[in-house]
Amino acid sequence: MRLLLLNPNTTVALTDLMLAAARPVAAADTVIVPATAPRGVPYIATRAEAQLAGGVALEMLADRQGQFDAAIMAAFGDPGLGGARELFPQPIIGVAEAGMLLACMLGRQFSVVTFATALEPWYRECVAMHGLESRCASIRTLDGTFNSIAAVQEEKEALLVAMASTAVAQDEADVVILAGAPLAGLAAKVADQIPVPVVDCVVAAVKMAEGMVALAPRKATKGSFRRPDAKSIIGLPDALTRWIGHEN
Amino acid sequence: MRLLLLNPNTTVALTDLMLAAARPVAAADTVIVPATAPRGVPYIATRAEAQLAGGVALEMLADRQGQFDAAIMAAFGDPGLGGARELFPQPIIGVAEAGMLLACMLGRQFSVVTFATALEPWYRECVAMHGLESRCASIRTLDGTFNSIAAVQEEKEALLVAMASTAVAQDEADVVILAGAPLAGLAAKVADQIPVPVVDCVVAAVKMAEGMVALAPRKATKGSFRRPDAKSIIGLPDALTRWIGHEN
Amino acid sequence: MRLLLLNPNTTVALTDLMLAAARPVAAADTVIVPATAPRGVPYIATRAEAQLAGGVALEMLADRQGQFDAAIMAAFGDPGLGGARELFPQPIIGVAEAGMLLACMLGRQFSVVTFATALEPWYRECVAMHGLESRCASIRTLDGTFNSIAAVQEEKEALLVAMASTAVAQDEADVVILAGAPLAGLAAKVADQIPVPVVDCVVAAVKMAEGMVALAPRKATKGSFRRPDAKSIIGLPDALTRWIGHEN
Amino acid sequence: MRLLLLNPNTTVALTDLMLAAARPVAAADTVIVPATAPRGVPYIATRAEAQLAGGVALEMLADRQGQFDAAIMAAFGDPGLGGARELFPQPIIGVAEAGMLLACMLGRQFSVVTFATALEPWYRECVAMHGLESRCASIRTLDGTFNSIAAVQEEKEALLVAMASTAVAQDEADVVILAGAPLAGLAAKVADQIPVPVVDCVVAAVKMAEGMVALAPRKATKGSFRRPDAKSIIGLPDALTRWIGHEN
Amino acid sequence: MRLLLLNPNTTVALTDLMLAAARPVAAADTVIVPATAPRGVPYIATRAEAQLAGGVALEMLADRQGQFDAAIMAAFGDPGLGGARELFPQPIIGVAEAGMLLACMLGRQFSVVTFATALEPWYRECVAMHGLESRCASIRTLDGTFNSIAAVQEEKEALLVAMASTAVAQDEADVVILAGAPLAGLAAKVADQIPVPVVDCVVAAVKMAEGMVALAPRKATKGSFRRPDAKSIIGLPDALTRWIGHEN
Amino acid sequence: MRLLLLNPNTTVALTDLMLAAARPVAAADTVIVPATAPRGVPYIATRAEAQLAGGVALEMLADRQGQFDAAIMAAFGDPGLGGARELFPQPIIGVAEAGMLLACMLGRQFSVVTFATALEPWYRECVAMHGLESRCASIRTLDGTFNSIAAVQEEKEALLVAMASTAVAQDEADVVILAGAPLAGLAAKVADQIPVPVVDCVVAAVKMAEGMVALAPRKATKGSFRRPDAKSIIGLPDALTRWIGHEN
Repeated sequence: MRLLLLNPNTTVALTDLMLAAARPVAAADTVIVPATAPRGVPYIATRAEAQLAGGVALEMLADRQGQFDAAIMAAFGDPGLGGARELFPQPIIGVAEAGMLLACMLGRQFSVVTFATALEPWYRECVAMHGLESRCASIRTLDGTFNSIAAVQEEKEALLVAMASTAVAQDEADVVILAGAPLAGLAAKVADQIPVPVVDCVVAAVKMAEGMVALAPRKATKGSFRRPDAKSIIGLPDALTRWIGHEN
Repeated sequence: MRLLLLNPNTTVALTDLMLAAARPVAAADTVIVPATAPRGVPYIATRAEAQLAGGVALEMLADRQGQFDAAIMAAFGDPGLGGARELFPQPIIGVAEAGMLLACMLGRQFSVVTFATALEPWYRECVAMHGLESRCASIRTLDGTFNSIAAVQEEKEALLVAMASTAVAQDEADVVILAGAPLAGLAAKVADQIPVPVVDCVVAAVKMAEGMVALAPRKATKGSFRRPDAKSIIGLPDALTRWIGHEN
Repeated sequence: MRLLLLNPNTTVALTDLMLAAARPVAAADTVIVPATAPRGVPYIATRAEAQLAGGVALEMLADRQGQFDAAIMAAFGDPGLGGARELFPQPIIGVAEAGMLLACMLGRQFSVVTFATALEPWYRECVAMHGLESRCASIRTLDGTFNSIAAVQEEKEALLVAMASTAVAQDEADVVILAGAPLAGLAAKVADQIPVPVVDCVVAAVKMAEGMVALAPRKATKGSFRRPDAKSIIGLPDALTRWIGHEN
Repeated sequence: MRLLLLNPNTTVALTDLMLAAARPVAAADTVIVPATAPRGVPYIATRAEAQLAGGVALEMLADRQGQFDAAIMAAFGDPGLGGARELFPQPIIGVAEAGMLLACMLGRQFSVVTFATALEPWYRECVAMHGLESRCASIRTLDGTFNSIAAVQEEKEALLVAMASTAVAQDEADVVILAGAPLAGLAAKVADQIPVPVVDCVVAAVKMAEGMVALAPRKATKGSFRRPDAKSIIGLPDALTRWIGHEN
Repeated sequence: MRLLLLNPNTTVALTDLMLAAARPVAAADTVIVPATAPRGVPYIATRAEAQLAGGVALEMLADRQGQFDAAIMAAFGDPGLGGARELFPQPIIGVAEAGMLLACMLGRQFSVVTFATALEPWYRECVAMHGLESRCASIRTLDGTFNSIAAVQEEKEALLVAMASTAVAQDEADVVILAGAPLAGLAAKVADQIPVPVVDCVVAAVKMAEGMVALAPRKATKGSFRRPDAKSIIGLPDALTRWIGHEN
Repeated sequence: MRLLLLNPNTTVALTDLMLAAARPVAAADTVIVPATAPRGVPYIATRAEAQLAGGVALEMLADRQGQFDAAIMAAFGDPGLGGARELFPQPIIGVAEAGMLLACMLGRQFSVVTFATALEPWYRECVAMHGLESRCASIRTLDGTFNSIAAVQEEKEALLVAMASTAVAQDEADVVILAGAPLAGLAAKVADQIPVPVVDCVVAAVKMAEGMVALAPRKATKGSFRRPDAKSIIGLPDALTRWIGHEN
């Protein structure tokens, strides 16, 4: 099975980081195909950036039709997820939803832990978008700046572990989600320093996507996730224009 | 005051329809400045289309910085609203939020009434996005197709009036919102045929925007709606790239 | 247009304070007509006082039928609002709802900031009554006593500004609402000391009321806000008795 | 123990009906003391009427201080309940809350069944005020008019029984609450015609009030239900003015 | 009337403690019949223990059919309550629900106060099970260990009183519930040291149960709490097997 | 990997049915180990039966410690799930939660479709227990009786397909969950007759469990899902008694 790891950020180093986290847990017959956004921002951290990146993600999916069996939308806020699920026939899994849904099977309440304060409002809206407020004990973020988005997990490892433990002690988190593409792979390193299960969203998404392919759900032909009617597009990239126009 | 009436659809006839609804209620010193999306779909009806249109709306706002005092995001699902509010200093008012918030001052529960079944899921998510589920009695949509998006309000007038009355009788709506750009101006025509107050979203947005300009709220410098930090953009239109990069 | 500024408190100095906040933002053709409760408490601060004041407000509205185009219920908990909206044909706007709904268009979450601890439970129930819990980040109140209800905004200005900033920093408020009649006019003075938009409820209500008059919504003839059937009243003031009895 | 059965309606026949329902279930040492509103409307059916009646109820309680051990606020919407609980030291029990809370111990979801459509919105707000939406399967009301408020339970008995059974079959009600003062005593007559437990609100309130007196809870001296600070009152009845002014 | 005080814990000293709290408030003609779980854990403190104890409680109720008029499920999480209410014709009252519902009539928000951290998650799920989250200000628990479950209320009295006062001051609790079988009887001792009403759950349950017997609700014959259809049981105790099999 | 398929019903034919659904989707190296409840009811359909079956499930897990890597609690209401997750170190997956969480990745709202009216209340409480009410469009059940629990899926196939389509058309379900052990395997047969994705809960649970084993989450040592402290047990089966007593 071919699993598209779609990074809607423009930073290749983040794609690499996520790929390194994904490959060890993939099944023997799963090929992880990475893709990095050709347009947009280095690292999505706001609603505006997610709005733009979600559109680019749709373009990337249209460009790659026929080349994958399922796709992972690999940025914690799951930008463009709903639209992708309408447009395309393959299962599309968001890393935020995969991480949160898996966390639901490991306890009553999860805390989302990440490295930058700026991410909190967007993450909070993501929890709400998935209807999981009652399962979310807290979102905790580090103050302060960092040197490099691709190396932030090393730089902040000790602080993140401490904050995760605080989430357990003070927020009654049963599970900790280490959120954000730059933290991919960290859970495996620090799991034994945190007294509850720790979820790596990329890893969760790989296993969810593999399960989804095994189940082979049909594409809806009625209701809210059926393919939208053909529309005449102005000024969008070719592959997406053709796809929305039902020209392929 | 200059009020940007931003139509994120590509159909100029819809902009004209909304302009015709907006002008009669605008204050004497309000200039309504119309703008139609240069890229995108003729009429946004799905999550995917809203994702793309929201991005185009951000471009349109960046292109017009310095040319307006407040903007109306003139498509019922308010595409790109949160991002626009982060990026730009002017008040940005969504027609859906304006219509729903005004309706809240006219009764306990409103019903959203529109002309196409396809719109319901997207509208429902819009109600939830604004946290107004407990004020929403129902969303009612017409079955069946229509001839022209720009003339659908004439074609379906009788059916829409009947459906609004049903919403009052069966769903206990205290207020009816006629939703969707193609219905702009209809409320004034049919208000006396519906036994509760009827809200025209464009009209509501004009008055909300005028009030907002009078109040002159400051741009946040902290918290979730402060202007995002400068980012290096790849492959987006010039004005938006400069604005996100803090180059102006 | 004539806009009734109905103060359900018996303190004329508070009416004057609100009038001073309202006039500068009113449109050129808006006449603000003040009215102070002839019966009740100097300043409503509890559920019991709101219960009584809401009844007096209905009397005041009945007394002034034919003399105004819209009314502002000018006490933060919006006492008697629902009943007023049932009974009378004019739009009635509560200062709490106006402030909160306007705040919803300026960010995701607002904090309500006021000067007395006693007000918090009543304010919390007001937020719930309007179904806006998910939009409310916090209600923050000052401890301690004050010298004069009419001068409390001067006395406590620095503390209120500090508390508003705390609401931004700790509660993630995107917007601050300065609540309570005694704080009318304060927002304009301190807006540049608080790092997010600050809402003055009286100002918000004036603009909402002007917008509502422009829209001219019809009085419901069905549903929960139609005029109640005529009733025989015992022992209530004359104008209200006649109005409830449909004698005028 | 002396239990004040406070009817905030002005109709003595309704007080008599409730008294007849209350006495048979009262304990041997419980004296039910009836009181009928000296001012207000014959039968509260709207928000406006509840606003006024709640104020009258506070007057009635002030007039009778020292004469009862607990009071029943005997109209389904519990008008004035929160204010009464603040002001006075005795337990105050609303018939709506008593009926709904007792129903919670008889099943997962209750339906509220009553005789007049006009009551539904007010009842719905009452369910929300008590935070019991998730326990309420439905509110069902009869269409049509009736001859006499005091005899409506006889006139509509068959229709109410049928509607209760419909609530069980269609709304999945585990319990039926027959709501409204005019239905006091009906539950006992029709219980064997309805396939789930049926709650009489007056009966529930009597038992709750007796239990409360046995428990002898202290009056709060802190928090939101402590007695409000003394206030100077203008133009309210004597006993209430003195009580609010802490003159007795 | 015979009231079964069913302790699903195996510790007889806890039954005695609850009996001592129950008897003084019981009506003259109420006989409190104690029963202690013959199987299970000394003191239920986790979901697993509640799962097992709830099953034992059903056995105990089956064993005693014909011997009581109502039963109190006397452990704060109300283990087995829903199942008991389905199976048996008598009213079954949980101490948690009785305490919380009574608290609802004494203020807007209650805090649940108990002696052991381990109990919090289970208690939180119990609040949710009863749909009372919006009425619960907080759950507060003591850290640290204790010497004897039967004497913990004496050992921790001062700490519990202090924590209750903190709940009033910081969490805005209008009412305090002292929760857990080991705290039965404590409320009466400490009520005057806590500035809001304090609820003893066992006491609340006794009065609720007496009220329920007075009301004599019928057993549902339709809906979700009718007696389940007869089933063939394997390997369960005799009386329960016969009861589930409709053999008596 | 060894995956315990724990059927808490006593009917071996249901275990076989679920095993037949599970095996085709299991990975090459997954061994599905079936287990049927040695005590309890043939088919759990009520709260009481779930209470008892959940306890038996804990016994079954204790009996099999060391023999499996993850377990599937294979009855739709997930009886005993929380307790199992506290007590044991292996991942435990409920079929209801697996089905619902997977459905969340296939659309906005799912409908739960099953064959017997009796199951609805218990299923509704299960949805609430998992905090997924906002994702659940409806629960739909067939009226009428059936011949054999093990053959009900064949007998009712056409009716279930029709009801699933109704859920799509009327309840706006984006996904259909065929719920209940007796429907295991049906989704694969009827998927092409239903216009949206159809979820088989057993299949979902197998893939979720495999993913969970691959992730190898640690057992919590703090918080609400750490192993409970050792307790002295009376009268429970040996293996469970030893496990709860930390004797192994």
